[in-house]
Amino acid sequence: MSADLQQEVGHNKIAINFIWVFLGAILVFFMQAGFAMVETGFTQERNAVHVMMTNFTIFAVGTVGFFLMGYALMFGGVGPLTVLGGKEILGIRFEPVRGWSLFGLKGFALSGKGVYDVGVFLFFLFQVVFMDTAATIVTGAMAERWRFKAFLVYGLFMSMFLYPVYGHWVWGGGWLSRLGANLGLGHGVVDFAGSSVVHAVGGLCALAGAMVIGPRIGRFDSEGRAHAIPGHNLPMAIIGVIILVFGWFGFNACSTLNGGDLRLAVVAVNTLLAACAGCLSAMFYIWKKMGKPDPSMTANGMLAGLVAVTAPCAFVPAWAALLIGAVAGILVCEGVFVLERFGVDDPVGAVAVHGFNGLWGLLALGLFADGTYGSGLNGVDGGVRGLFFGDAGQLAAQAIGALVCAALVFGLSYLFFRLQDRWQGIRVAPQEEVDGLDVHEMGVSAYSDERCLIMRTPSIVALQATKSYEYEE
Amino acid sequence: MSADLQQEVGHNKIAINFIWVFLGAILVFFMQAGFAMVETGFTQERNAVHVMMTNFTIFAVGTVGFFLMGYALMFGGVGPLTVLGGKEILGIRFEPVRGWSLFGLKGFALSGKGVYDVGVFLFFLFQVVFMDTAATIVTGAMAERWRFKAFLVYGLFMSMFLYPVYGHWVWGGGWLSRLGANLGLGHGVVDFAGSSVVHAVGGLCALAGAMVIGPRIGRFDSEGRAHAIPGHNLPMAIIGVIILVFGWFGFNACSTLNGGDLRLAVVAVNTLLAACAGCLSAMFYIWKKMGKPDPSMTANGMLAGLVAVTAPCAFVPAWAALLIGAVAGILVCEGVFVLERFGVDDPVGAVAVHGFNGLWGLLALGLFADGTYGSGLNGVDGGVRGLFFGDAGQLAAQAIGALVCAALVFGLSYLFFRLQDRWQGIRVAPQEEVDGLDVHEMGVSAYSDERCLIMRTPSIVALQATKSYEYEE
Amino acid sequence: MSADLQQEVGHNKIAINFIWVFLGAILVFFMQAGFAMVETGFTQERNAVHVMMTNFTIFAVGTVGFFLMGYALMFGGVGPLTVLGGKEILGIRFEPVRGWSLFGLKGFALSGKGVYDVGVFLFFLFQVVFMDTAATIVTGAMAERWRFKAFLVYGLFMSMFLYPVYGHWVWGGGWLSRLGANLGLGHGVVDFAGSSVVHAVGGLCALAGAMVIGPRIGRFDSEGRAHAIPGHNLPMAIIGVIILVFGWFGFNACSTLNGGDLRLAVVAVNTLLAACAGCLSAMFYIWKKMGKPDPSMTANGMLAGLVAVTAPCAFVPAWAALLIGAVAGILVCEGVFVLERFGVDDPVGAVAVHGFNGLWGLLALGLFADGTYGSGLNGVDGGVRGLFFGDAGQLAAQAIGALVCAALVFGLSYLFFRLQDRWQGIRVAPQEEVDGLDVHEMGVSAYSDERCLIMRTPSIVALQATKSYEYEE
Repeated sequence: MSADLQQEVGHNKIAINFIWVFLGAILVFFMQAGFAMVETGFTQERNAVHVMMTNFTIFAVGTVGFFLMGYALMFGGVGPLTVLGGKEILGIRFEPVRGWSLFGLKGFALSGKGVYDVGVFLFFLFQVVFMDTAATIVTGAMAERWRFKAFLVYGLFMSMFLYPVYGHWVWGGGWLSRLGANLGLGHGVVDFAGSSVVHAVGGLCALAGAMVIGPRIGRFDSEGRAHAIPGHNLPMAIIGVIILVFGWFGFNACSTLNGGDLRLAVVAVNTLLAACAGCLSAMFYIWKKMGKPDPSMTANGMLAGLVAVTAPCAFVPAWAALLIGAVAGILVCEGVFVLERFGVDDPVGAVAVHGFNGLWGLLALGLFADGTYGSGLNGVDGGVRGLFFGDAGQLAAQAIGALVCAALVFGLSYLFFRLQDRWQGIRVAPQEEVDGLDVHEMGVSAYSDERCLIMRTPSIVALQATKSYEYEE
Repeated sequence: MSADLQQEVGHNKIAINFIWVFLGAILVFFMQAGFAMVETGFTQERNAVHVMMTNFTIFAVGTVGFFLMGYALMFGGVGPLTVLGGKEILGIRFEPVRGWSLFGLKGFALSGKGVYDVGVFLFFLFQVVFMDTAATIVTGAMAERWRFKAFLVYGLFMSMFLYPVYGHWVWGGGWLSRLGANLGLGHGVVDFAGSSVVHAVGGLCALAGAMVIGPRIGRFDSEGRAHAIPGHNLPMAIIGVIILVFGWFGFNACSTLNGGDLRLAVVAVNTLLAACAGCLSAMFYIWKKMGKPDPSMTANGMLAGLVAVTAPCAFVPAWAALLIGAVAGILVCEGVFVLERFGVDDPVGAVAVHGFNGLWGLLALGLFADGTYGSGLNGVDGGVRGLFFGDAGQLAAQAIGALVCAALVFGLSYLFFRLQDRWQGIRVAPQEEVDGLDVHEMGVSAYSDERCLIMRTPSIVALQATKSYEYEE
Repeated sequence: MSADLQQEVGHNKIAINFIWVFLGAILVFFMQAGFAMVETGFTQERNAVHVMMTNFTIFAVGTVGFFLMGYALMFGGVGPLTVLGGKEILGIRFEPVRGWSLFGLKGFALSGKGVYDVGVFLFFLFQVVFMDTAATIVTGAMAERWRFKAFLVYGLFMSMFLYPVYGHWVWGGGWLSRLGANLGLGHGVVDFAGSSVVHAVGGLCALAGAMVIGPRIGRFDSEGRAHAIPGHNLPMAIIGVIILVFGWFGFNACSTLNGGDLRLAVVAVNTLLAACAGCLSAMFYIWKKMGKPDPSMTANGMLAGLVAVTAPCAFVPAWAALLIGAVAGILVCEGVFVLERFGVDDPVGAVAVHGFNGLWGLLALGLFADGTYGSGLNGVDGGVRGLFFGDAGQLAAQAIGALVCAALVFGLSYLFFRLQDRWQGIRVAPQEEVDGLDVHEMGVSAYSDERCLIMRTPSIVALQATKSYEYEE
């Protein structure tokens, strides 16, 4: 009976982890709604359906791409999940890698693991929603001028290639995660829930995309002065942010992948504190600077705090989470201004929120990790310690990670968008942009509001009546 | 001590299942928000509050009806839950039925089971939200012309009678679930999470309702040509779809009713893949056909994939889930066109999404079930196998289920709506329809937007000012 | 091995509780989105961003305030959580208090408990979201005329002081919870999930605030006649209510703090039934009275039912939950009318929903608790029984709790708002109110809808173009 009991106890433990990871996966999935609302709210009415559709269909495109190829490249049976090196979890045994792995090569279309390896299925579910978070970030920065066809191709690039490669390096047992075991730099690059793997990858790809596609018509005048193009639905955007925070609790806490790792409580509280600190610091900073507590910046400040704490949330004390979030709130404001000064048009602030703060989060771990967690991680014993707790090597590893991430992601993305632009053109025609992408690319209007119909140009009303309308370019 | 330990382990197991089923129940409940947004977004502004109110109050009406009577008819202590035949779960022992049960007769108002039979309470919670999903489907197809009073009566018909009867036949140990044990047709009718029990029931009742109530004014001209009536808020509808996907993970995965049944991972991934395949196939199909990736069709394609995979999700391999979803995406497009050709006006596509694809999902299980799951189900040993995996009998059972579902649900619903129409009238007066149901039936306007007030007719502005206004018919 | 096994079983049990409490915390957090949507939908377009921002930033302000001070006052290591007296849960041992504690004094900034006392972190997470629910209620009643600066100060008052004090008295082992052990009044004041601690505190503070700040311009004419100011987006408000119901399942059920307390099923079903009863009773009541099933009242009826059942949900039979909800639905309608008659302007009905029904819920427990649950609670053996089940003492305790809550919260809040008004002014200038708070206080417009731009006054269009605009007062 004891053996039976033992087995039942073990099964309960696995069931707990399954529920935990399932919960995390669906919470992160739900962030799609948050991103869709934030990006649509911060952009113009005439492109509202287009922005929604990119946020909506990226999930379908990305999932298929990650299923067919991305997952195999990223985790392909090669190595351990960073956080779990050498441990068994979800019934999957993650083997530590010893070398300098660049990508995996097993598990295409979830094959080769037994048709129903339930642990692998669940792990895939958890990973695919993280990938889609990265992929959906870019749709904000390139919104209001991106050709839908070009966007779909980008979806495959991100899900099948870009995200999995850097992801493998940090989470899949790749070479960045081996900097500790192989070179003695702390625990190698550590990124608990994806400040860099998810957010910096999305944000820096977004930067490249925004640069290649160029600013929206009217965003900068002939003398280079910036003109704000206000979003058409700020309440929608703010609700989107609340949804994102809700999902982020799953994003970070469930990244323990282990419901019995009670550190999840610390992760959740640090996530909360950084979000609040980012919100308040951005609000007061912009208030001081511009005279009003700008709602867009305040909302982005909360997101910035969340992005920044995503890597360090399991490793730092509460006061550090507050500090990391507060810095993030200021960084996102200044980031937006800097991009504007350089003539980069990012309608929703995705680059500043996810790109800059993703890198900040990676570095922050190298500063504030206090050594109370992470023993065994990436094959290195002892807790993870940042500079302020005695390990400069960890900060060095994090800095290398940030540099590699920035160079790799920005470089490859820039190249990709340039080539794609030559090949198929990534930007809509100027007339389409002026009229709005909804009518031209989607054949519909976001709000068919009879009350205001009279105010529309007759041609657009006519467009609406017939779905098969084709615009002459 | 060992006995204590044994008990503690058993209690942990039950706690895991309670959390799992609770999670599923609230996720399915949350789908009410998704349905409300999809249906309101796809309809006109002047009826927005009315559509919201039907989606909102159906939950209250349906819950009371199901509590008082529906639950007893459906599960009434008579028999096993299909999936669980003869097993004990949630502390409830589901006894296998041997005969050809038509309905249950115990458990009215949750009585007769001990006042606090916690397992029964939780099981009721899980079932009532599924019932409400079916009930809320109909509000979409009959929107923009349905009298609110008539709708309320429908709510009782659905929750107290229609849903529980077919539900009993498949999930409550009724005769359809016994086709295997009694006649040797595979495992009898198998429907994992409700392609037929929930979606086809809702969708086919919606078809009957849409036929009896007739098309909206202006939907078809005097020569029978269809004219699209565009929805007033497509972004809202798309967010609604994302919420539905979020909830659907609970709908399907938590239908194991057992957090320790690790097959839940397969269920979740199949759900994901079918949703994405449906989205993409509908998008590309309509793009090819109409020249644009119509957002409404794309969104409905994702829902169609979800509906179709709901029955087979636990029994089929990943490639089959993709295929089932892809077929669903095309089926929903063609379904919409066919209904239009027959002069049926379904403002949101509910019949094509839930009705046609619900039946397709039931059949798909009979084709693609691969025999790796479901032993003991409905009292039949061995895994469930579809035609392509060697069991034509299972397909026969599924086909019988689909025919019975279609005939029973459509027939009874048609009869009900006809009788109700004679008795109390189910449709508003033409003038009310033209003015919008919000003002006439609800006494309010969805958007009291001061900026556009000037554009309204003075009478409507006046209406708003006084809530006690009564319209002269 | 047995000791290892024992430990593993115990760890599973704690993991189950952690997941359960985490789930509850994030669900309650998500209610912020619901409140934001309800309050914004029920108010005017020109204040939409302002209302959103108060609902959004209250979370950041409140969290910081509760982290620094509120949590310590409320739970400060002094005493037992009411429901848990003398038990160990989440790894925290709650010691029963014997005296008449007024507030706690340990745990400022989560210090002094070991830096990573995971149970304390999780318990804090759960409590902070409840506090923010109370805090966000007030933003509805004072909407459309509240200075943002004054609101921020209020956020600290509520989170650092008002909420923790009454909370300590009932949940933190304070004197109200000792009325049973010390004076023999049943189990002392019992409030399962916060009808009084959360909702009445929020609702009565809202009443004081609405009285001090005064009605909106145009709400009452010179002869004191009320004029309805319709909300600008009712669909948004109704979706908000659905989100609130979704979160409320966590609010109530997860308040067991123990995933193995299977009573959670009863709690969830009672919550469901009261919500539905409240919705229907309010709808039919207002329909009868005003001639239409007013959507706002119907929606508020569902919330009222939820508020009222929050205290008694674990202690009463299903029929009582229906009754409690039905009474709440009528109470909220009459409450709104009474406030209007007294010249109190509460744009969203927060006082009637949360204040009046919070007190009703506290009393309802004293009437209908049936003695099947709660043994050991507040240090008193035997189940909690209300008047109708034989214990008039329990009703006396509940009545004392309601009186103390009303007096303390209304009194302190009234004093606070009066003093604050003298010190910094809590109301915007009349011109700001007429123009809308969005432009003046936030420097933006909620909907920058190009279609309707022409209808705006040129000056407001100009305002939008430049964020640094400062209004001359």
